[in-house]
Amino acid sequence: MTTDWELSELDDRARELDAAHVFHSWSAQAGLKPLVIAGGSGCRVWDHSGASWLDFSSQLVNTNIGHQHPSVISAIHEQADLLATVAPATANLARGEAARRIVERAPSRHNKVFFTNGGADANENAIRMARLHTGRDKILSTYRSYHGNTGAAIVSTGDWRRIPNEFARGHVHFFGPYLYRSEFWATSPEQESERALRHLERVIQSEGPTTIAAILLETIPGTAGVLIPPPGYLAGVRELADRYGILVITDEVMCGFGRSGRWFAFEGYDLVPDLITFAKGVNSGYVPAGGVIISDEIAADFDENVFPGGLTYSGHPLAMAAICGALDAMAAEGIVENARRIGAEAIAPGLTELADKHTAIGEVRGEGVFWAIELVADRETREPLPAAGMARVKTDLLARGLLPFVQDNRIHVVPPCIVTDDEVAEAMAAYDGALSLVD
Amino acid sequence: MTTDWELSELDDRARELDAAHVFHSWSAQAGLKPLVIAGGSGCRVWDHSGASWLDFSSQLVNTNIGHQHPSVISAIHEQADLLATVAPATANLARGEAARRIVERAPSRHNKVFFTNGGADANENAIRMARLHTGRDKILSTYRSYHGNTGAAIVSTGDWRRIPNEFARGHVHFFGPYLYRSEFWATSPEQESERALRHLERVIQSEGPTTIAAILLETIPGTAGVLIPPPGYLAGVRELADRYGILVITDEVMCGFGRSGRWFAFEGYDLVPDLITFAKGVNSGYVPAGGVIISDEIAADFDENVFPGGLTYSGHPLAMAAICGALDAMAAEGIVENARRIGAEAIAPGLTELADKHTAIGEVRGEGVFWAIELVADRETREPLPAAGMARVKTDLLARGLLPFVQDNRIHVVPPCIVTDDEVAEAMAAYDGALSLVD
Ligand SMILES: Cc1ncc(COP(=O)(O)O)c(C=O)c1O
Ligand SMILES: Cc1ncc(COP(=O)(O)O)c(C=O)c1O
Repeated sequence: MTTDWELSELDDRARELDAAHVFHSWSAQAGLKPLVIAGGSGCRVWDHSGASWLDFSSQLVNTNIGHQHPSVISAIHEQADLLATVAPATANLARGEAARRIVERAPSRHNKVFFTNGGADANENAIRMARLHTGRDKILSTYRSYHGNTGAAIVSTGDWRRIPNEFARGHVHFFGPYLYRSEFWATSPEQESERALRHLERVIQSEGPTTIAAILLETIPGTAGVLIPPPGYLAGVRELADRYGILVITDEVMCGFGRSGRWFAFEGYDLVPDLITFAKGVNSGYVPAGGVIISDEIAADFDENVFPGGLTYSGHPLAMAAICGALDAMAAEGIVENARRIGAEAIAPGLTELADKHTAIGEVRGEGVFWAIELVADRETREPLPAAGMARVKTDLLARGLLPFVQDNRIHVVPPCIVTDDEVAEAMAAYDGALSLVD
Repeated sequence: MTTDWELSELDDRARELDAAHVFHSWSAQAGLKPLVIAGGSGCRVWDHSGASWLDFSSQLVNTNIGHQHPSVISAIHEQADLLATVAPATANLARGEAARRIVERAPSRHNKVFFTNGGADANENAIRMARLHTGRDKILSTYRSYHGNTGAAIVSTGDWRRIPNEFARGHVHFFGPYLYRSEFWATSPEQESERALRHLERVIQSEGPTTIAAILLETIPGTAGVLIPPPGYLAGVRELADRYGILVITDEVMCGFGRSGRWFAFEGYDLVPDLITFAKGVNSGYVPAGGVIISDEIAADFDENVFPGGLTYSGHPLAMAAICGALDAMAAEGIVENARRIGAEAIAPGLTELADKHTAIGEVRGEGVFWAIELVADRETREPLPAAGMARVKTDLLARGLLPFVQDNRIHVVPPCIVTDDEVAEAMAAYDGALSLVD
């Protein structure tokens, strides 16, 4: 029999080994107090001693199907018993089946998938394809974006993480639409859209259209604040790109595979991208995987010419089996539909109610299971809530048994797509309590 | 009952889906005829219909523990039942245990591991750390090298794959030692070593030592031809680096974790690196993983300062469990020792015998289970065997039931570390037969 004492020793052991030997992403390493997570199921995670949290972060917004979905776990078990790994130059059934399931959900003239390990290298390879297809160098992306931590992906990233890492050339940044903190002195969604497009066109013209390979953008910028594009913006980007012979790469790493309440977020916005990058939700990250969905026109470039990119674990069987398991279960169980319904019927009204009640809330926005609550010190000036306030909210939410996603002055409300009405109600109560600390 | 006919349909299906939907690494896509691989065990792989091959490629030189090692597979099963994925900001026991097992085998002043998904992003993050630690930009690496396909890794790569991808700055290349095709007009290993060091020092001086963050090199360049460093070379690199205040990053992605007959290849060469990158052999690629082993001095830079790098699947539990399973089994079963013994007692004499017999062999070199046979059209001029000859050898080896690793004019003899004397004898017979086609 394992006693509680022994179990809490496991938590101590996890913390000890972590402090001694694990170097963490995007952090100063001293004084980290990481939560121990030992297990999970559905929308909950727990430590070894039995403390548990309602996961409204989906970890890094990747467990779209929730934790430990039995269909994905059993797909992993089955493939592990057949063949865990194989070189990318072979043909493997799990890989073909995963690719088929992905292209079936993609636009009709997108029939090939290049698999990677995650989102960063998906963007690296999409950028590579765009440059080779156009014979042009520059990649345009927005300041409010995150595209990954590798050489080109980090420099196409717009946020602070780019600054210490600017060792790649050929990247130019522009401002995207964000009405609540408009860069364009706009006062309506329509005006924000129109002015953001005007700004983008001026950047294209000023950089020189013939130097630009692609516009890379998150369909819905995620880490930057769940910035839902205003009406006409993405259609306008496509139109500008076509006019100037530029490709469009949509980064669906965070917003894809159910998060927005659709299989792909761009389906809601009248835009067919040339290249689509994905990771996270495609298999909820149960086994690392990402990739690029390639238009037939671009894929054809490499029928006779060597594609100069690749990696050891491209199309890794275990990751591919997890994709098949995840996509089949999401389809069979209506999980994407659930994300759409719960967004409209539970999260939207819940957050609206919170916004009516809490003066600390400046704006709520989102769709599906992809929402942000923007916290402000002053509703008039929209001054962001300072870090100390955010830390209080975060600590309080954890104490209330909710694992939140806190970014800058925002709480991102990003549960798994399988979240239930009851769980949303539970989360709203926790947010309600915590927000009363900072009104 | 499944008939043979049904099984061969699965092979057809795998090929069909592959041709329709899977975009392959480093290839022109038309006319690829990939081998279907459905399963494997130890040193063998097979398709659905029952054709099988002795795997002397270890896929991409990654299945150091062989295929489907029961300890690694059961570690994956166990972790899959607990928790497949978790965010890197948490503490997780599998991650701490994997890190502990890695640093236990590393030099004593290396106590932290930053986990990535593979080799490319391991090098990306090591380069990032070196730049931030030194406040300098340039990374020196050899022309005969491969470091991965992402932004910085592909430009630090020296081989042809860099050429279409040169979009990063701060990379400089130099020539490493390779006596058989010396860049330095050398005629003995000692002279090659001395002259290669002199060349490196001249590059350092000419670039300006204070602009150079790190020398990045594969301890034993792998894809470039298993280029065993001549006596004194790596110690000399360390000495030069110290003299000029430059860091040394050893890329142990291919040569590490048993391949050389040691846990790390550098242990054989009187060199303690500042940063060590790894992937492949650490868990034989059963679940994608890689990482950077960090010296205490460099790790300390990020105690109070934020490390500006990270990724969603850093320290992924399933990958970490596979590391624990693999390293424990390798230790318990003396798998690294087997690689060393079989290299000295079976592969070395076997290849020497082949070289005595076949005029097409220009040189054999290697250690452990890491060898290359260099094929030439003419032993005097050392002119590489043309592509058509290499293709004949490859086709014949496959027909003889051996899955070879063929690169340029070389056959790399790179079986799993668990390979037996009988399997080596079987492979030698196959090489013997195939080589008679091109003498
Ligand atoms: C939109 C977007 N793109 C790319 C990435 C990078 O993905 P990964 O961390 O798997 O490299 C992320 C990760 O958060 C992301 O949100
Ligand atoms: C020495 C070396 N470094 C880095 C890499 C890149 O590793 P990955 O393909 O996992 O990105 C490789 C892959 O073959 C390699 O051999």
